[in-house]
Amino acid sequence: MTDSPRMDHQTMLTFAADVMGAAGCSAEEAASVADVLVEADLRGLFSHGVMRLTLYTDWIREGRMRPGAEIREVVSGPAVAVLDADGAPGPVSAARGVDRAVELALAGAAAFVFVKNGTHFGPAAHWALRAAERDCIGFCSSNGGGVAGVLAFGSRDVALTNGPIAWALPGGRHPALVADMAVGAAAMGKVRVARAAGMSIPDDWGVDAAGRPTTDPNALVDLLPFAGPKGYGLGIVTETLAGILAGAVARVNRKPDDPQPVGQVFGAINIAAFRPVAEFRADVDDAIDRLHAIPPAEGSDGVLAPGEPEWRRREQSLADGIEYPDGLLDDVAVTARGLGVAPAWS
Amino acid sequence: MTDSPRMDHQTMLTFAADVMGAAGCSAEEAASVADVLVEADLRGLFSHGVMRLTLYTDWIREGRMRPGAEIREVVSGPAVAVLDADGAPGPVSAARGVDRAVELALAGAAAFVFVKNGTHFGPAAHWALRAAERDCIGFCSSNGGGVAGVLAFGSRDVALTNGPIAWALPGGRHPALVADMAVGAAAMGKVRVARAAGMSIPDDWGVDAAGRPTTDPNALVDLLPFAGPKGYGLGIVTETLAGILAGAVARVNRKPDDPQPVGQVFGAINIAAFRPVAEFRADVDDAIDRLHAIPPAEGSDGVLAPGEPEWRRREQSLADGIEYPDGLLDDVAVTARGLGVAPAWS
Repeated sequence: MTDSPRMDHQTMLTFAADVMGAAGCSAEEAASVADVLVEADLRGLFSHGVMRLTLYTDWIREGRMRPGAEIREVVSGPAVAVLDADGAPGPVSAARGVDRAVELALAGAAAFVFVKNGTHFGPAAHWALRAAERDCIGFCSSNGGGVAGVLAFGSRDVALTNGPIAWALPGGRHPALVADMAVGAAAMGKVRVARAAGMSIPDDWGVDAAGRPTTDPNALVDLLPFAGPKGYGLGIVTETLAGILAGAVARVNRKPDDPQPVGQVFGAINIAAFRPVAEFRADVDDAIDRLHAIPPAEGSDGVLAPGEPEWRRREQSLADGIEYPDGLLDDVAVTARGLGVAPAWS
Repeated sequence: MTDSPRMDHQTMLTFAADVMGAAGCSAEEAASVADVLVEADLRGLFSHGVMRLTLYTDWIREGRMRPGAEIREVVSGPAVAVLDADGAPGPVSAARGVDRAVELALAGAAAFVFVKNGTHFGPAAHWALRAAERDCIGFCSSNGGGVAGVLAFGSRDVALTNGPIAWALPGGRHPALVADMAVGAAAMGKVRVARAAGMSIPDDWGVDAAGRPTTDPNALVDLLPFAGPKGYGLGIVTETLAGILAGAVARVNRKPDDPQPVGQVFGAINIAAFRPVAEFRADVDDAIDRLHAIPPAEGSDGVLAPGEPEWRRREQSLADGIEYPDGLLDDVAVTARGLGVAPAWS
């Protein structure tokens, strides 16, 4: 396990783009992927950062992710589009999806764009935020990605992918409010951290091979939905919106020999269609100020707005470099060397 | 406490309409309110059923709910409208809101309608389902109603209303998938049940007057958000979508002497804009069949689709009558007699 130094984000952008380029991406595709993954690392979302280069380049080798794939708009409407990504790198088709949703929303009021045959696109919040940067409320969800399965409420076997639900709402003085969560009770990344640290886990995170709730992270096989029927219900909504509606499949509909096409949904609500954007932003700022003014609970350092911990982390990472957890980049270093790219940190 | 008999739902519809009529509603308004509340009772959602007649008629007396109020459309766009309900009975303005959202969605792809100055409208799922009955995916949320407050993640005092998030997705052979949840870790109704039964509650439901998690339902003052930061994040999204965007206020923005106007949002996604509705319905049916086929966990009778427990309860209630919990209708009997309406059950 390598002690990872603090890394400058520009260095990591170059590194990630070099790896994707060596794997067959165009310069533009490589830059697009690098931007999303390094942005995730800046926010401390390491499970969706440059460590994913290993998965991405594996997929390119297997033909599941296809650099240069043509993204076609297969359904067009006044406030809707469906894009067939044909396996293009996820961040490339996701950017196309969000930008189309924003374009359609700004011409009206609200729009949804669905991407089928997508691949992993980094943190869903990234795409909701991309809409929020253009005076929209952004929404993003996905029915795929991730090997971790989530049980139905009361089920013995997996029913759902651990799909994300992300919203971003622009502020004024304050950065955007961001809510980004998976439908599972915990991220598999947290389970892996507990394994590495030899710690036990809460008994509502997941079940063992016999389907029983477990506090042993090594025994955990599948995740439980968050808050029981609530996470289960929102998980089915996610699978349907991001999968079935776009003509992709929900996990539960898959047949054993199906490929696992990822369906993604990007929503944008044009704030100006409802009220002046400046007023909306001022009210969001006021809400954030008032959240900050609420006395903290015992053991809490203060009340933060949703998304604020990641904004603070980003500011710190930009100033001081990204502080990677020890060993996190070991696999990606091997991946990079295999493609003839020297890791920037060793 | 009265032993409540099983009640025929037609009898309860007449009773509820009579009470609302006696309180000043037109026949049409009274029928609309009765329909929503009795439908909630049919599904076993008693906290949002006819027991609310007491609250509704109190509000009419106080001028907070105004029979005959004119509902005006104050913002109109291609896929958007904002209605000012001027305190009209919640179910009346909610029906207007959903129907407008569906009309706009069917003319395009997706639409949002916001209602400001609304009042309590029953279960949010009722309005999501109204859209699902017309070949749309329905969404409904609200920033108001309910005295129960929900803490921010890590806060000592209340930051959120215990607002609902509801989705309905139409099936074919199967009834619609329904996800309907409040952002609090538990409903205050469940806390009241624990109080009455002398039972303890899980320590993640809420806090006592000192802001500490409590297992004593009598000590519980405020609710915690479900799944910690997840419920908090979705709660802020709800407050912003249903409050700030429509020009209503989020709970956290309220000043002490503010009235408490309720903001509501109704969304509709036109399935046919994306793919043939019959194909969508067939895929949803297939998903439900596959959920049913998943082996149940230990202690579970089987895997149900989200919303299915309420559909089953409804079928049973229609056949055998609504089985009200003992004592649940005591207050509403007093309310009815005070308005010169004889309760149907005594």
